[in-house]
Amino acid sequence: MADKVTPRSQDYAAWYNDVVQAADLADYAPVRGCMVIKPYGYALWENIQAALDRRFKETGHVNAYFPLFIPMSFLRKEAEHVEGFAPELAVVTHGGGEELEEPLAVRPTSETIIGHMYAQWIHSYRDLPILINQWNSVVRWEKRTRLFLRTTEFLWQEGHTAHATEREAIEETERMLGVYTDFAYNEAAIPVIPGRKSEREKFAGAVASYTIEAMMGNGWALQAGTSHFLGQNFARAFEIKFLDVNNEFQYAWTTSWGLSTRMIGGIIMVHGDDQGLVLPPRLAPIQVVIVPIWKNEEERTAVLGASQAVRAELSDAGVRVRLDDREQFSPGFKFNDWEMRGVPLRIEIGPKDVAKDQVVLARRDIPGREGKQFVARGGLAAQVTATLQAIQEALLARAIAFRNANTHRAENYAQFREILETQGGFLRVHWAGSSEDEDRIQEETKATLRCFPLDAPEGRGRCFYTGQETDRIAIFARAY
Amino acid sequence: MADKVTPRSQDYAAWYNDVVQAADLADYAPVRGCMVIKPYGYALWENIQAALDRRFKETGHVNAYFPLFIPMSFLRKEAEHVEGFAPELAVVTHGGGEELEEPLAVRPTSETIIGHMYAQWIHSYRDLPILINQWNSVVRWEKRTRLFLRTTEFLWQEGHTAHATEREAIEETERMLGVYTDFAYNEAAIPVIPGRKSEREKFAGAVASYTIEAMMGNGWALQAGTSHFLGQNFARAFEIKFLDVNNEFQYAWTTSWGLSTRMIGGIIMVHGDDQGLVLPPRLAPIQVVIVPIWKNEEERTAVLGASQAVRAELSDAGVRVRLDDREQFSPGFKFNDWEMRGVPLRIEIGPKDVAKDQVVLARRDIPGREGKQFVARGGLAAQVTATLQAIQEALLARAIAFRNANTHRAENYAQFREILETQGGFLRVHWAGSSEDEDRIQEETKATLRCFPLDAPEGRGRCFYTGQETDRIAIFARAY
Repeated sequence: MADKVTPRSQDYAAWYNDVVQAADLADYAPVRGCMVIKPYGYALWENIQAALDRRFKETGHVNAYFPLFIPMSFLRKEAEHVEGFAPELAVVTHGGGEELEEPLAVRPTSETIIGHMYAQWIHSYRDLPILINQWNSVVRWEKRTRLFLRTTEFLWQEGHTAHATEREAIEETERMLGVYTDFAYNEAAIPVIPGRKSEREKFAGAVASYTIEAMMGNGWALQAGTSHFLGQNFARAFEIKFLDVNNEFQYAWTTSWGLSTRMIGGIIMVHGDDQGLVLPPRLAPIQVVIVPIWKNEEERTAVLGASQAVRAELSDAGVRVRLDDREQFSPGFKFNDWEMRGVPLRIEIGPKDVAKDQVVLARRDIPGREGKQFVARGGLAAQVTATLQAIQEALLARAIAFRNANTHRAENYAQFREILETQGGFLRVHWAGSSEDEDRIQEETKATLRCFPLDAPEGRGRCFYTGQETDRIAIFARAY
Repeated sequence: MADKVTPRSQDYAAWYNDVVQAADLADYAPVRGCMVIKPYGYALWENIQAALDRRFKETGHVNAYFPLFIPMSFLRKEAEHVEGFAPELAVVTHGGGEELEEPLAVRPTSETIIGHMYAQWIHSYRDLPILINQWNSVVRWEKRTRLFLRTTEFLWQEGHTAHATEREAIEETERMLGVYTDFAYNEAAIPVIPGRKSEREKFAGAVASYTIEAMMGNGWALQAGTSHFLGQNFARAFEIKFLDVNNEFQYAWTTSWGLSTRMIGGIIMVHGDDQGLVLPPRLAPIQVVIVPIWKNEEERTAVLGASQAVRAELSDAGVRVRLDDREQFSPGFKFNDWEMRGVPLRIEIGPKDVAKDQVVLARRDIPGREGKQFVARGGLAAQVTATLQAIQEALLARAIAFRNANTHRAENYAQFREILETQGGFLRVHWAGSSEDEDRIQEETKATLRCFPLDAPEGRGRCFYTGQETDRIAIFARAY
């Protein structure tokens, strides 16, 4: 409730933690590295879920549910996969008071158990493609955790598809990367960069991993969603085979893709400011808050009556609206409180406004007088809807401008290090280095290769690190 | 895909297992006692979720998420609770490659960890009530499992509320029992009996447990949802205290309530028949299937064109419709396939229907010619919507009639045993016995005290078991 938060400019990490808690999004759990997602944070997640789920269904996917527990032997079937995930597993050794014959991993991701089931379900090319998604929680025993960004348990969706041909599986991988990109731009107002991961950064067990990389307010990168082309790796490990049109056995081609509650951390860090959260209207649990202002009983009756009428009108127009008629708090307290919670638009109604048949609109994204306007009661719903749309667009435009202003070129490693040190942000560079070169760069600068952006019109140039000619463009940044 | 299922009349248990798998609702998982909920079964669960979630939100509840893991010490804080759940726990002993200092239980239910958090969040009477629900999965290490009815892991929702007064908490417990009853009648078409559990059958840690009890097609009972008044038991165990209006510390009063994927088992067993599933239209993933019928290419063009037009018209009218235009299957095969999957209404369109500008409607709940009618294309959407409503009502009426026909009175124990043996069903009796009497009755008849129905107009009478005068009515039955 409008607790004091560290200013963003002063200490970005402290600001982030303060905002998450002061805005009532999440709380630390009494279990190491776990979080409680509070109702306001969960309502944001529900809106993210709805926006994604609609897109998944429009692209032909259906939801299902696979078990929480995975036999340890399953994880060992794909060599790279187990190497990647074994160090992070939570393991159930006892059930019903007895020691289990085979320990069970709490799922860190579900390729293995889903691969096992797909092998039972797929017999013929007619059974393909299988396009399944599931909403669930997964557990990865992380050493250093941070609310939403990296927690031992987190909520996500994981899509798992199987296809008859390599081409179809690659198309699916790209399609879902496109769905994530569309969601990020048009719902979260985050101008992510879709790209391919380097060999060093790809998913354990994938042939190729794709990512959407977002720039946070401090210039760091956040991997906000991934889509993996798994080739036939899991199909071979789990014997996912089918009879093709020529009646010959073939291994299926599979993909997986996921986006998690980490996205909430991204929304906070891309749009937030010293006053707290700034939520994009399309995802905000409360899009409009009405704050009535009165001094005496007579004013109270008139103002509350007008406020309730406005609430009803906006609610009927499909706006997610809240009337804050709490008696124990002043209007000024309420302004701060709802600003902290990032509500995109505030409507103020006082006795003079009632007399003039008007209200005041105050935009969260434009502080002070500049973001305020008087609006006549007639046609208010249309005005509010248009203003929410304008806020959505303004947030995206601002984030694009910020991303572009903080994306730099570097011709050589010295320049690369200097820019990282003095300005930060994304370094967009020609790259012909190796995984070992990436290791060294990370060790020396803390920056990692975020992705090879799909959109790279730069043409040929010289690798800033090796000096080799190449047409490959990479983005490096410090990352969460 | 229309596999052969055991007739319901021949072997109810085998029929149930066959239907669950043949209708593609769920499959056995490679982990002991766990299930995979397949897309068709999960779509049914999504409709159940939507119908419940709407009701929860209309009654002022919000969703949140609490961790999967619960420290073992938390479970021990409420004596009855740990006694009830300890034998069924799955326990994580290792995380990140190391043995944990304190083992973690995978949540069997979340009263304890939520109680711990509520103690942090609640300070004043102004913070009350807290009305939170969560959708998640829980784990109970069951010895004998059966798809949907009793599995080691299952999906459910668990509501957890905290209140300033005993009266408010009791009202909440009753309100949510009412929500479940309304859902069961009006969405699942299951005429449940809302009632109170006996001391012997109540939730571990509750002051009073309420239940909705449904009668399955074989006369057995299924506990389909529960709502618990927890008194101050968990508030005392977890120190959930608040300053009241007089500035004095009080313990809060709490409730919890849950409904699970078990409900899917109930829907199958209440409405299903020898041909497979029969789904209530309001919850059916597919409400209407269109089966086109043709013999040659010319007919095919005309019939498919008409079928697509009908699909578009119904879809626009908000009907969940599927056009089965698969080329490799005959119309007869498709009829059986969709009957197995319980689709409430089938539309057949052949060349003659196209010529006459009509279609055939075939109701799943009325087999053969009696359930078929010709309907003119004009106004088809209205006719379909009305028919779906009629099917919904007919399923409920049939289930009520069945329940009433299979509910019996018994004046003494000999009669009770004879009815159970020869007719089964529910025994609605006067009851003044003890928990030990319930033990004996279960041992001798396998029947348990399902509930004391809230609606009990019988008045005073003699307990069938003890002979004592009482005005308490109980329902006994064999149960899942």
